[in-house]
Amino acid sequence: MSLIVQKYGGSSVADAESIKRVAKRIVETRKAGNEVVVVVSAMGDTTDELVDLANQVTPLASGRELDMLLTAGERISMALLAMAIKSLGQEARSYTGSQAGLITDARHGSARIVDVSPTRVRAALDAGAIAIVAGFQGFNRGTGDITTLGRGGSDTTAVALAAALKADVCEIYTDVDGVFTADPRVVPTARKIDRITSEEMLELAAAGAKILYIRAVEYARRHGVTLHVRSSFNNNEGTLVVNPTDGESVEEPIISGVAADLSEAKITIVGVPDVPGKAAQIFTIVASTDANIDMIVQNVSTAATGLTDISFTLPKSDGGTVLKALEDNKAEAGFDSLQYDDQIGKLALVGAGMRTNAGVSAKLFTALFEAGINIEMISTSEIRISVVTRADTINEAVRVVHKAFDLDGDEVAQVHGGTGR
Amino acid sequence: MSLIVQKYGGSSVADAESIKRVAKRIVETRKAGNEVVVVVSAMGDTTDELVDLANQVTPLASGRELDMLLTAGERISMALLAMAIKSLGQEARSYTGSQAGLITDARHGSARIVDVSPTRVRAALDAGAIAIVAGFQGFNRGTGDITTLGRGGSDTTAVALAAALKADVCEIYTDVDGVFTADPRVVPTARKIDRITSEEMLELAAAGAKILYIRAVEYARRHGVTLHVRSSFNNNEGTLVVNPTDGESVEEPIISGVAADLSEAKITIVGVPDVPGKAAQIFTIVASTDANIDMIVQNVSTAATGLTDISFTLPKSDGGTVLKALEDNKAEAGFDSLQYDDQIGKLALVGAGMRTNAGVSAKLFTALFEAGINIEMISTSEIRISVVTRADTINEAVRVVHKAFDLDGDEVAQVHGGTGR
Repeated sequence: MSLIVQKYGGSSVADAESIKRVAKRIVETRKAGNEVVVVVSAMGDTTDELVDLANQVTPLASGRELDMLLTAGERISMALLAMAIKSLGQEARSYTGSQAGLITDARHGSARIVDVSPTRVRAALDAGAIAIVAGFQGFNRGTGDITTLGRGGSDTTAVALAAALKADVCEIYTDVDGVFTADPRVVPTARKIDRITSEEMLELAAAGAKILYIRAVEYARRHGVTLHVRSSFNNNEGTLVVNPTDGESVEEPIISGVAADLSEAKITIVGVPDVPGKAAQIFTIVASTDANIDMIVQNVSTAATGLTDISFTLPKSDGGTVLKALEDNKAEAGFDSLQYDDQIGKLALVGAGMRTNAGVSAKLFTALFEAGINIEMISTSEIRISVVTRADTINEAVRVVHKAFDLDGDEVAQVHGGTGR
Repeated sequence: MSLIVQKYGGSSVADAESIKRVAKRIVETRKAGNEVVVVVSAMGDTTDELVDLANQVTPLASGRELDMLLTAGERISMALLAMAIKSLGQEARSYTGSQAGLITDARHGSARIVDVSPTRVRAALDAGAIAIVAGFQGFNRGTGDITTLGRGGSDTTAVALAAALKADVCEIYTDVDGVFTADPRVVPTARKIDRITSEEMLELAAAGAKILYIRAVEYARRHGVTLHVRSSFNNNEGTLVVNPTDGESVEEPIISGVAADLSEAKITIVGVPDVPGKAAQIFTIVASTDANIDMIVQNVSTAATGLTDISFTLPKSDGGTVLKALEDNKAEAGFDSLQYDDQIGKLALVGAGMRTNAGVSAKLFTALFEAGINIEMISTSEIRISVVTRADTINEAVRVVHKAFDLDGDEVAQVHGGTGR
């Protein structure tokens, strides 16, 4: 008997009909002889609607109350899903994050999981029931308050439960067939990846592939959880995200995929004195805002001025906060001026095989050059190369790179729409 | 410094604007130097919408999951109300029934409160904050599950907290000015009652006055909580529901009010053998259905047949269940047949003063007789007289009785619509 954790996003439980459809799939999994734990997000746009309601009341809602409000969403979907399963003759019990033992720190809106004690979930399984758990939410022991895990929190809930329950697999249901070599809406010939390492998946997720959230992949890698990303609209095999052990030999393709991200902006700090400790000082200021900065590039200083420029990328939503923090500390940091550019696109090429394959960068740069696309920033890791281009060239960039590395498949991928969260 | 518990129903928090309006009133109460605990129902029609959603999924939802679903409603309203209060510069904290220490038995959908330990609510007050508590919901320690208190549950939550916190008063906010001598929609000249004993209020509530639920009034009487029923749309004084102590002399009017109830039906059991223990046997069968039966009348048996008829009233919603239970046990109970009549109306005249005033019944019967209204059943308590008439004569009956007992006021009452729950 296998233990399977299944996670269904908001689009999979958008209305009563969808809930009944998902319930059927869950019951089939149970009847096939598996123990089943289901993690569910709020229905459709419920979370957005609740946020709207809060904004109507006050633009400055406190984190504690916002979490109290938003957790109502999963409470509704999980109760309805449990009812739907029971109406098919299978026992089911729904649990809030708190009841499922998802203990977090007290950071409202972006809480981190500190402990997972799914005693009641385990007991429900032992009693032959299907356990339905609210995604996205947890509980802080110190304050006794309800917390939420932030964006992609339901994926994290599913992975954390899979780890704590030692599940055989954690299935992430979405509205596409799996992880693709590129976004099928941009590259219609993109291929579904059957198998990918969590390390590569992490790089793809960090590079903007929205199918899985970084935190969930990180958690899965750290705890050795196997993920299976698949569609809730068919029974096709999706993409397995695996954690090869040291001894295990994995035949890896050189390149797994290409991801693009248009959600970032670039800040350039102009005229930074080129003295030791200056970069540390500046990034301490940036870090104080809790912004998630990504690529950092420092130009070589010209000997004449003793000044240099530092550029970095960050989510557009953090732009204002970071600019303000830098302006407020301008005198102390001693730079000349700030430039803000929100018209950038980021392309990332990911593949564990590039570790041992020289020439990947050269091939990437050549493909972009031949398409007339200018590269503004470059950053690399062991299994990833990222470049920043103008936003309006990013889709063309993805297509030429995808082709250059022979990633195109024979068929045109099926896309159901939505972002697959 | 007084401690005030305020309860706001769904119509008082129907949308963002209403929530902001209620928040202002709460903050004014706090600024006047009071400690304030607020109990809030789900917004407007939220509960009905959630029930609809459940029905779309399955007509046979389990109690546990239905409670999980419905408690999302107060979670939303209480979080929004706390945000609104905080945006006015006053500290506020929302608590679920479980967090507020409302411990119940495990009867989903109609749980009874077994213990109230509002430790966190008390701590919030001590910290100068306003505590917002979800009405209608509780927590069962044995199962660890969330429960709901059933109809009028938010009133009960408010009274239970007021008792546990030894509040000075429990204010029940509604959309009318208080408790009236009759329903102002039926009798436009009905007067607001300034002060009424909980005993009388209980009789009025039991007789169909929908402004307060019986359970809440019972709880208030048992624990000596003073209720103040008032409008959330103005600052008028409403109706005080008091618990006079033995020594206290309360100048009571003979009659407090007239209530009418169209929600009941009458079952007549025809041809019951007039032997000792027969009634007990029949009502044991009825009691097994958990139906709330009310007036019971047994006719004198005719010597010739040795048979008698027994009639009783009960909520229409319980009609089918009770008829079935009686049919199933017909042989054992030994009656001839059953009659069901759902076209009855019940009128109740309530007043502590009637204890010491003879002639009240005579005056009531005369008023109805003169209006040509036939009385089908009569039942009395120390402070109440109830009669059953045809449903279509009940409003006229209320008007003539209201007039006969000089209850008419000088002004026409203001009605805001809604049922004032």
